Amino acid sequence: MARRPIVTLTTDFGTQDHFIGTMKGVILENVPEVQFVDISHSVQAFDVFDGALTIAQAYSYFPSGTVHLVVVDPGVGSERRPIAVSTEKYTFVGPDNGVFSMIYDREARLSVRHITAEHYFLQPVSNTFHGRDIFAPITSYLAKGVDLDRMGEEVTDFVRFAAPRPKAVDEHTLRGVVLKVDRFGNLITNITPQDAPMLFQAEPSPFKIIVGSKEIGQVHSAYAQGVPGQVFGLLGSMGYLEIATNRGAASKITEAGKGSEVKILF
Amino acid sequence: MARRPIVTLTTDFGTQDHFIGTMKGVILENVPEVQFVDISHSVQAFDVFDGALTIAQAYSYFPSGTVHLVVVDPGVGSERRPIAVSTEKYTFVGPDNGVFSMIYDREARLSVRHITAEHYFLQPVSNTFHGRDIFAPITSYLAKGVDLDRMGEEVTDFVRFAAPRPKAVDEHTLRGVVLKVDRFGNLITNITPQDAPMLFQAEPSPFKIIVGSKEIGQVHSAYAQGVPGQVFGLLGSMGYLEIATNRGAASKITEAGKGSEVKILF
Amino acid sequence: MARRPIVTLTTDFGTQDHFIGTMKGVILENVPEVQFVDISHSVQAFDVFDGALTIAQAYSYFPSGTVHLVVVDPGVGSERRPIAVSTEKYTFVGPDNGVFSMIYDREARLSVRHITAEHYFLQPVSNTFHGRDIFAPITSYLAKGVDLDRMGEEVTDFVRFAAPRPKAVDEHTLRGVVLKVDRFGNLITNITPQDAPMLFQAEPSPFKIIVGSKEIGQVHSAYAQGVPGQVFGLLGSMGYLEIATNRGAASKITEAGKGSEVKILF
Repeated sequence: MARRPIVTLTTDFGTQDHFIGTMKGVILENVPEVQFVDISHSVQAFDVFDGALTIAQAYSYFPSGTVHLVVVDPGVGSERRPIAVSTEKYTFVGPDNGVFSMIYDREARLSVRHITAEHYFLQPVSNTFHGRDIFAPITSYLAKGVDLDRMGEEVTDFVRFAAPRPKAVDEHTLRGVVLKVDRFGNLITNITPQDAPMLFQAEPSPFKIIVGSKEIGQVHSAYAQGVPGQVFGLLGSMGYLEIATNRGAASKITEAGKGSEVKILF
Repeated sequence: MARRPIVTLTTDFGTQDHFIGTMKGVILENVPEVQFVDISHSVQAFDVFDGALTIAQAYSYFPSGTVHLVVVDPGVGSERRPIAVSTEKYTFVGPDNGVFSMIYDREARLSVRHITAEHYFLQPVSNTFHGRDIFAPITSYLAKGVDLDRMGEEVTDFVRFAAPRPKAVDEHTLRGVVLKVDRFGNLITNITPQDAPMLFQAEPSPFKIIVGSKEIGQVHSAYAQGVPGQVFGLLGSMGYLEIATNRGAASKITEAGKGSEVKILF
Repeated sequence: MARRPIVTLTTDFGTQDHFIGTMKGVILENVPEVQFVDISHSVQAFDVFDGALTIAQAYSYFPSGTVHLVVVDPGVGSERRPIAVSTEKYTFVGPDNGVFSMIYDREARLSVRHITAEHYFLQPVSNTFHGRDIFAPITSYLAKGVDLDRMGEEVTDFVRFAAPRPKAVDEHTLRGVVLKVDRFGNLITNITPQDAPMLFQAEPSPFKIIVGSKEIGQVHSAYAQGVPGQVFGLLGSMGYLEIATNRGAASKITEAGKGSEVKILF
């Protein structure tokens, strides 16, 4: 028996309107047996980088063959191209605005196609909701097994941005940034253990992490190790240094948020 | 192989409580193979018109045979009837309070039945959660293939309200209203291209759209064509004139919201 | 044909991040045909009692064999144990922090196992996201049909808290508490008809319910029976006395919320 095709959805559409339901209806027309998984529809509105980060955190946990639909698309109706990206295990469908940048960074084998197969589109194609009119039907045909190369020609000039990397200000100082604040108020930074290995040593030399209004001198390995009310560093499940607290919101305690500077002094 | 039955859900129940999960559990008891699609659970609380608008935007994108469950039901436990509505392609289940009014407007063939088949209900029936006790089980039996005419007698005096239509104030002035504000802050008006064809001509005569604190002189065909910070008109994916802006919330810029007047001067 | 396994999810993870999607991806790896139902991901952050209440309201409406995954887990990465609980009809997976207390109260046959079968875990196991690394894979194997006794040894010293019970202050006074406020602003108390049978009699003797800034002298049987703007008591669908109003939020009118005292004077 064939596996049920899996389609994930990541958008900035929110869930209060009919948008997501409508897209799923369009997909079901072609693959009624599809297994939908919503990754998030609360990507910050118009924020392509936030979308890139969200799909990058989740995609690799899905079974091989999953089609990942990502629509964070402030340029809908303009010249930006619809694309389909294939990697060793997955297919991605969305706008060519950089939302797959972190996939490009992580995947060795990669092919990107400009979707031009208009006969698959929902006609008439609106200028404002390509999620419904282009991306959903293309996703449905891919989930159904239509070959990717029937969607359009391969392109190499796809849009790609560099995720912000931490910078060594001097020998003793590393400067990073808060990439996002999660639901619990944890500050997810762009600093990995490779960037600052000393933080995660069993017996680290003294250090200071400065973020918002706080100086932090401790790294714990679990949220529950912290003293409530105090913030600390921690290697989060996304693979980045997080600033966190035990049963509370580090974002409130530090008065920091997305885009805030994170400085580490060694 | 039989298609998996599709059930969509549209409610004002929110997603923070257990309500939606509970209704799905009840449905699964009879149709474990069902394909659920949440259209929205963020219909404004008690707002039957907002529910009517939400289901009207999404229902027609689903495969034939889909059962659409709609529970926006401030009159639960009172005399208002539970009904099942059948159209050429779909079945709708919900309270008889007008929430299907826009379906009645759009569908030529229509039959409405008063649901009285109490042997299908979840006993004992509460006075406060007919979504769980009446609408979910009835939906499950319909999805399973039980004939609609076994649910109760046809009625013709179902509740139906007229969606607000724009009015010509004089020869040069059309007055409409904002039906809803979407997730991005776009103002969805009740004005269609048929109401104001001149707005959407290739070379329109001068016009002014007045909404909230702003006067608007431009209609674009895509969000990305606008100058950030400025509002403009646009034919939205719902088929109505929207007041929008590029990468921002028109609702904030215009200080207008649901129910605000929209005046067009030609 | 075998029934599709059903997995429900109840967490405090919210839906804005990738957490839920990631957990579902992990589960799909082993049971691609699974039927997911989200009960709620808006359990109050770190609030084990709120999680206990949420799953307790919903679980019994699901078909026999459903696996209920519950992750409200402020102690992730500490010594708290992962457990699997089996009842006559269901299996529950989550942390041993009391989140299943109301299940323990309601189910006669009960077995609780400490999950130690590390070969089922997603390696390497993080200290911060056991939902992904332990609970999701264990859930997937249970949904797939792996025997519960292969997950670990039975334990009897599982964590269990007593839900707060109303107390008779004197002969004429009962004191309870607001357990939660639902999406509509209804105040769900911990008072059942058994605790205060006189409230729900056909012709009750005079009584007063005092909550927040209001004194209430009426119990209705449906929301729609109330006068808008006035609050009243009602036997809610959860089996508790609710303080409600017709088409409005009782929480606003009473200025009461979660944890507020509810006093009944007879």
